[in-house]
Amino acid sequence: SNPSLLILPGDGIGQEVMAEVRRVIEWFGAKRDLQFDVFEDLVGGAAYDKHGVPLHDDTMAKAQEVDAVLLGAVGGPAYDDLDFSLKPERGLLRLRKEMDLFANLRPAQCFDALADFSSLKKELVAGLDIMIVRELTSGVYFGEPRGIHMEDNMRVGVNTQRYTEAEIERGARAAFEMAMKRNKKLCSMEKANVMESGILWRDVVTEVHADYPEVELSHMYADNGAMQLVRAPKQFDVIYTDNLFGDILSDCAAMLTGSLGMLPSASLGAPMENGRPKAMYEPVHGSAPDITGQGKANPIACILSFAMALRYSIDEGAEATRLEAAIEKVLADGVRTGDLLSDANSTAVSTSGMTDAILAALDES
Amino acid sequence: SNPSLLILPGDGIGQEVMAEVRRVIEWFGAKRDLQFDVFEDLVGGAAYDKHGVPLHDDTMAKAQEVDAVLLGAVGGPAYDDLDFSLKPERGLLRLRKEMDLFANLRPAQCFDALADFSSLKKELVAGLDIMIVRELTSGVYFGEPRGIHMEDNMRVGVNTQRYTEAEIERGARAAFEMAMKRNKKLCSMEKANVMESGILWRDVVTEVHADYPEVELSHMYADNGAMQLVRAPKQFDVIYTDNLFGDILSDCAAMLTGSLGMLPSASLGAPMENGRPKAMYEPVHGSAPDITGQGKANPIACILSFAMALRYSIDEGAEATRLEAAIEKVLADGVRTGDLLSDANSTAVSTSGMTDAILAALDES
Ligand SMILES: CC(C)[C@H](C(=O)O)[C@@H](O)C(=O)O
Ligand SMILES: CC(C)[C@H](C(=O)O)[C@@H](O)C(=O)O
Repeated sequence: SNPSLLILPGDGIGQEVMAEVRRVIEWFGAKRDLQFDVFEDLVGGAAYDKHGVPLHDDTMAKAQEVDAVLLGAVGGPAYDDLDFSLKPERGLLRLRKEMDLFANLRPAQCFDALADFSSLKKELVAGLDIMIVRELTSGVYFGEPRGIHMEDNMRVGVNTQRYTEAEIERGARAAFEMAMKRNKKLCSMEKANVMESGILWRDVVTEVHADYPEVELSHMYADNGAMQLVRAPKQFDVIYTDNLFGDILSDCAAMLTGSLGMLPSASLGAPMENGRPKAMYEPVHGSAPDITGQGKANPIACILSFAMALRYSIDEGAEATRLEAAIEKVLADGVRTGDLLSDANSTAVSTSGMTDAILAALDES
Repeated sequence: SNPSLLILPGDGIGQEVMAEVRRVIEWFGAKRDLQFDVFEDLVGGAAYDKHGVPLHDDTMAKAQEVDAVLLGAVGGPAYDDLDFSLKPERGLLRLRKEMDLFANLRPAQCFDALADFSSLKKELVAGLDIMIVRELTSGVYFGEPRGIHMEDNMRVGVNTQRYTEAEIERGARAAFEMAMKRNKKLCSMEKANVMESGILWRDVVTEVHADYPEVELSHMYADNGAMQLVRAPKQFDVIYTDNLFGDILSDCAAMLTGSLGMLPSASLGAPMENGRPKAMYEPVHGSAPDITGQGKANPIACILSFAMALRYSIDEGAEATRLEAAIEKVLADGVRTGDLLSDANSTAVSTSGMTDAILAALDES
């Protein structure tokens, strides 16, 4: 049977960029005879608007069945006043948790054609290629107890940072495996100087290291990590860190590259029956309410996320490479959405214009 | 009686830069007839080496009595394997907690003469002047329960993020007061989209805002905050955030300026009998084991911390300005420690050489 995809465009520009991914999927069907069973459903604010919850149970069940979930983005100011349990983000977090997608791979890669776009000086970022492995299903995002309660007539807000050694370990293995496929260099980040959960983190990562003696392992406090990312990002290759530090550090690293509209991500879980991991793919960027509905969004991050799905979930690595090469060609040809232009005098293509160019490059490939 | 200072040089370059501060203090005594009762004691690894604890009770008691504590830095690789409760950092954290220094002021200021030193493009940081107000005595640094315990034969690491509305509120007031003295613009950062403690944070800050209607308040998720700091730092004036986010975001912001060896900080508590707050002053940089003992450290951050003490704890604002002006002059004259030089051909002054220049400029002031 055909590989199956569940498309969840979500909110804001998530819907716009995912429409472009559908065109790319259709191209692979028509021109490369790669057929998919494609399902589409709602998540986040869009799901709330229709069902009153940010993720319907039927959608959750479908996500568990397919070969890969492709997600756009969730959230937006329209949902700011919603109750915590109904917020668009809860839909995304439920997917991560129930699919048990513990390893979030977030590349921070500076595309040659775009090195000028970084806030950082060009020589600090040209050629930058970091892979952050963020633990995604534990830590303060999910720890209990949590909530707001009254104590001595006062509101108290509580969240719990909680990590078992098994949770730290499986993410660490994913990070070491990634390091083995790359440059055998791994930096683990925590705050072991102030948090006991950080001490356990450091100990477990050090223990797992015994199984990967070829990898050069270092440890860094997360605050220093943020500094070093800004100071000299090329010192890093693979970074392994927890859910909350990973949230902040990966956003920081992504922004360094100047390629925010270009960066895909994969969230991987345990292997399914077919041997491939449960997986969800999404662009690193968010729902971008400020440019929603204007045809300005850059679809490349989302299209590259589909390329990652081709490689990791569909076993079509060669087709993934074809797609990535088409994107590189288009960039080399100077095709730019607005986010990739600093000069107000140059002309930007629209969201669909970018896809037109990518499909034309695919036709020639 | 004379104002009293407790000097705690601590570890690594903390000792070297604090020796320079003593010279500055002596200058004010000799030349400006400003006498201090100066006490000096141990903290961090240095205290552990002598007393077996990172802060002796007598030192703690003294810190509670003086007008201001000046701290250098704590920590170093020699103490990496110490038990958590004995780590150098625990000495610093005990001072913060028992003195109840809830408002940590961390400027991220780009000195004109040094704008070239930033990793960021010059136009993004020239003139940058952000003040981060970090809540310093609560949150995950101090929340209970905490520790590593066994559960089902497995180690589990736990820390607790805990904030009462009173804790959020008093820090918020400090931040709004700071905003009133500056440009009436405050950005509060949390993760209210995934943490209930962040929801309470946002709610309380919004409530305090009612007392400062002139201040323009915005809210931002901390991950986006890290991104925006890299993308366009000049959009910020005062930032208010919690202990852990503040640790990471302030290091990131400090590094943006390229002036890490230049940045002081103040940690302030409730007013004492004399109306001035309990206070500790320290450079933003750490103990820098890599350059310890080489006479390379830049003493300016620590000297500027003393200037902050003159202003906030000793009521000698004019003398603080005199000292700051001397430092500016020295920088304008091109005097540079190694951290302020990119060109390998230029000559750096030593730690004490920098102070020589500052004292000479003071003599002329
Ligand atoms: C949308 C939000 C829940 C999410 C997170 O905090 O993990 C996002 O910031 C991310 O990094 O994917
Ligand atoms: C040394 C350490 C305990 C401290 C912290 O985490 O607060 C430091 O990083 C800081 O920011 O002052």
